[in-house]
Amino acid sequence: MSSNYRNSRNNVPWLIILLEAAFIILFYFFGLNSDPSLSSISYPVFQDVNLIVIFGFGFSLTFLKRYGFSSTGFNLLIIVLGVQYSVLIEGVVFFFRQRENEDSLKRITRAVVSMTAVVISSGAVLGKTNPVQLILMTVVEVLAFHMNRWINTTFLQVVPDNISMMHVHLFGAYFGLAVSSRFSEPSPGSEKNASTPKSDLLSMLGTLFLWVFWPSFNSVLAVDSKSKAIYNTYFALAVSAVTAFVLSVLTTKDGKFRMSHIRSAVLAGGVAVGYAAETIKYPWIAMILGLLASGITILGSYCLQRCLNATFKIHDSSGVHVTFGLPGVLGAVAHIILFVI
Amino acid sequence: MSSNYRNSRNNVPWLIILLEAAFIILFYFFGLNSDPSLSSISYPVFQDVNLIVIFGFGFSLTFLKRYGFSSTGFNLLIIVLGVQYSVLIEGVVFFFRQRENEDSLKRITRAVVSMTAVVISSGAVLGKTNPVQLILMTVVEVLAFHMNRWINTTFLQVVPDNISMMHVHLFGAYFGLAVSSRFSEPSPGSEKNASTPKSDLLSMLGTLFLWVFWPSFNSVLAVDSKSKAIYNTYFALAVSAVTAFVLSVLTTKDGKFRMSHIRSAVLAGGVAVGYAAETIKYPWIAMILGLLASGITILGSYCLQRCLNATFKIHDSSGVHVTFGLPGVLGAVAHIILFVI
Amino acid sequence: MSSNYRNSRNNVPWLIILLEAAFIILFYFFGLNSDPSLSSISYPVFQDVNLIVIFGFGFSLTFLKRYGFSSTGFNLLIIVLGVQYSVLIEGVVFFFRQRENEDSLKRITRAVVSMTAVVISSGAVLGKTNPVQLILMTVVEVLAFHMNRWINTTFLQVVPDNISMMHVHLFGAYFGLAVSSRFSEPSPGSEKNASTPKSDLLSMLGTLFLWVFWPSFNSVLAVDSKSKAIYNTYFALAVSAVTAFVLSVLTTKDGKFRMSHIRSAVLAGGVAVGYAAETIKYPWIAMILGLLASGITILGSYCLQRCLNATFKIHDSSGVHVTFGLPGVLGAVAHIILFVI
Repeated sequence: MSSNYRNSRNNVPWLIILLEAAFIILFYFFGLNSDPSLSSISYPVFQDVNLIVIFGFGFSLTFLKRYGFSSTGFNLLIIVLGVQYSVLIEGVVFFFRQRENEDSLKRITRAVVSMTAVVISSGAVLGKTNPVQLILMTVVEVLAFHMNRWINTTFLQVVPDNISMMHVHLFGAYFGLAVSSRFSEPSPGSEKNASTPKSDLLSMLGTLFLWVFWPSFNSVLAVDSKSKAIYNTYFALAVSAVTAFVLSVLTTKDGKFRMSHIRSAVLAGGVAVGYAAETIKYPWIAMILGLLASGITILGSYCLQRCLNATFKIHDSSGVHVTFGLPGVLGAVAHIILFVI
Repeated sequence: MSSNYRNSRNNVPWLIILLEAAFIILFYFFGLNSDPSLSSISYPVFQDVNLIVIFGFGFSLTFLKRYGFSSTGFNLLIIVLGVQYSVLIEGVVFFFRQRENEDSLKRITRAVVSMTAVVISSGAVLGKTNPVQLILMTVVEVLAFHMNRWINTTFLQVVPDNISMMHVHLFGAYFGLAVSSRFSEPSPGSEKNASTPKSDLLSMLGTLFLWVFWPSFNSVLAVDSKSKAIYNTYFALAVSAVTAFVLSVLTTKDGKFRMSHIRSAVLAGGVAVGYAAETIKYPWIAMILGLLASGITILGSYCLQRCLNATFKIHDSSGVHVTFGLPGVLGAVAHIILFVI
Repeated sequence: MSSNYRNSRNNVPWLIILLEAAFIILFYFFGLNSDPSLSSISYPVFQDVNLIVIFGFGFSLTFLKRYGFSSTGFNLLIIVLGVQYSVLIEGVVFFFRQRENEDSLKRITRAVVSMTAVVISSGAVLGKTNPVQLILMTVVEVLAFHMNRWINTTFLQVVPDNISMMHVHLFGAYFGLAVSSRFSEPSPGSEKNASTPKSDLLSMLGTLFLWVFWPSFNSVLAVDSKSKAIYNTYFALAVSAVTAFVLSVLTTKDGKFRMSHIRSAVLAGGVAVGYAAETIKYPWIAMILGLLASGITILGSYCLQRCLNATFKIHDSSGVHVTFGLPGVLGAVAHIILFVI
């Protein structure tokens, strides 16, 4: 990375300055209106989501001892760029489609939620990219995500707007894997893959924040029943945490809990229940979903490491495929089944 | 621990799976209703309490360098199991006593608050138990706590329900000590008792979170005057933090602040004021209570280490007796005195 | 420090006890009333501000490896003392000027916000003072700050009360520098100035908390338009974070991001926009302010280290001059310009 990095060091600042100047100018035309009206977004919940994206994801990626600053610092950089960019894209779309304007807090919230896709993708390429590549990925991915949303809500008329936002996990995970496949895998024994007990503990810190605030993430854009979204997510998370501990013991040879298993499976239930959090009627359905999600995450990570990744030559630094990809697929399938029923 | 642990590794997953399956089935019958009505619990305050129990307690126990993951990971495991279990117990009680159902968020909040007892108990046996023992302790303790509450509210008619929840500290501390007395004490010089500056700092991180969000904990279930509960707790905490620093200097030989003193005494005021937070009329009463609570915590830890624990052969890993037990007793006494006046 | 410290160890506890006893007695006369009315301060936002001051500032100062406990522990000590003291000062002022009493939560919030000045000052003297000196500094500075506010609102009639609170950054930074000039500079190569990657990462943890919750800080005392204050601050912070990364690369020789730059410049936008957060009409103005603030912070730190500090013999441990001083000046100037326009 260092030689690559040194070559691109002249480009990084100018690329960012150019972007930032463009953003400020475009904000003049398409930016937020100063609406004094009451927002449909609760400010504390908005802050929970910010905390998830900036702090939770940032620190949950610090488990590689060499990338403590990369994961927290670069994470902040791509989020602040991406949020402005994402707010602008929606502003332009609103302008040309002459839809009525939404309140500012809601637009920022939506931008922050859509940045989750980029943050998840950056987890897949952690330690393999330099900042220029990360910024380019952000620019392309945010645009692609909004096009994907637009296609979903326009052509597949059944998908309401707030559900289309919940594609972030799925979109982020597979976009990240696609990008990751373009990079060479670091040698297995290298220091780049090493984690220490201390870095693992800091990563646990980030993960616990993600776990605690995930109900806020699933409910912030809900329109009908925020409280249903909250407790369905809560119980799905609880069951997937339990299952994570169980399966971690069963799949390791020495019968001990493995921190990486807990880290990836503990959130699976929250991801899987994302689509249907509002529509699930009884918590036991959410609990079963959490159980299945955590199951496919740990069994998936067990299988994938052995066969699939080797075949496709994909190196997934922080396991976003099993953490966000597979539970996202499960959630989408469950949403369709529940919708049909 | 390791030999014990290896023997029980076959039991851990099956015990947990059995419990979790039972929970999901029972949730089908006694679970939450999907009530769309407004909750009396504010969602951000609910999240503060979650943050206290899952993150604050978890990280405040990381001061032993060998138990970083044990304290944060096992803490999460027993909470997610215990919350489901506790919601179910209340569901069964509601069902058989045919009381009107409460909103879901309140039931989850009450379950999380009652789990504090188990978390405190687990602090007393930190590093001495394996996961199977922890889970058994959780199952027994939650049941005992709810029976204790039921006895309190039914036979001692004076105790309203939200006050009965504030027994968590007292109950947790002495239940933990009772369990701890069944285990042998680790040898004094062993690595198991060692803490490093780094682990102490992470523990400070958890403690600061506990300190900041303790007013949420004391006010979340308050019914009459949440704001009174908030600022009484705030000032009790402030004075007990000040007293902790003072007494830490006075009781150590080299006249330096001792991190373990600060950690245990800083919360004493919040614990002591728990019962009476709503009923104390003037903040200066709460402040005096905070002063006394912090005083008995540090002087208690000074005396207990010398005499009592040696006599009764109790080894209290994280000092829950002085952190939660003694201030809890003081709070109960103060509550009765204030009630009589 | 150790010899100084040993001499003063007899004074520390008695000084604190004396203060605390005086506070409790004065609270009896001038303390909070128990008002059950609804507060104009939202409790979750109040907690955000507490988290900023106690946790965020505490941990963002842990970057010096030898002062982990000093920065978090002493920070807590001076805040709990200062908040009580500050509440009392306002109580006395209210009493003698016979103004109508405000709700308790608002008074505590104002006290916490005004303590930011002391916390910023303590950043400038980090590692150079013992606790007695810190407490004396707190006592003098809080009094000076409230006199400064009183002068601002009484004689310069144009300044409303909530704006006068926003002088905290400016006041704290230059008060801290003035105090710092009285202490000798530690020798450049000494261990006292050393930071490790681990301590840098913990400091990043505190900084991210500051960054996320800064909109709460700027909006908590706003009276007209809290939502405008929130999103103006958000975008100013976003742009200043971007600029921090850009300028960090441009001003370092090896073209790498420097953690100390990010730490100091990332907040500059939020500080600069503090005065005018409510009155700025369009986010692009806040964004330009963020850009300028971050620019003068990093360029300022580049120049100051070379010329000014050497001339004036000021050693600024955590760079409060560039982090809070210069952006504060910029914000005050911008506020006047916007006011005139």
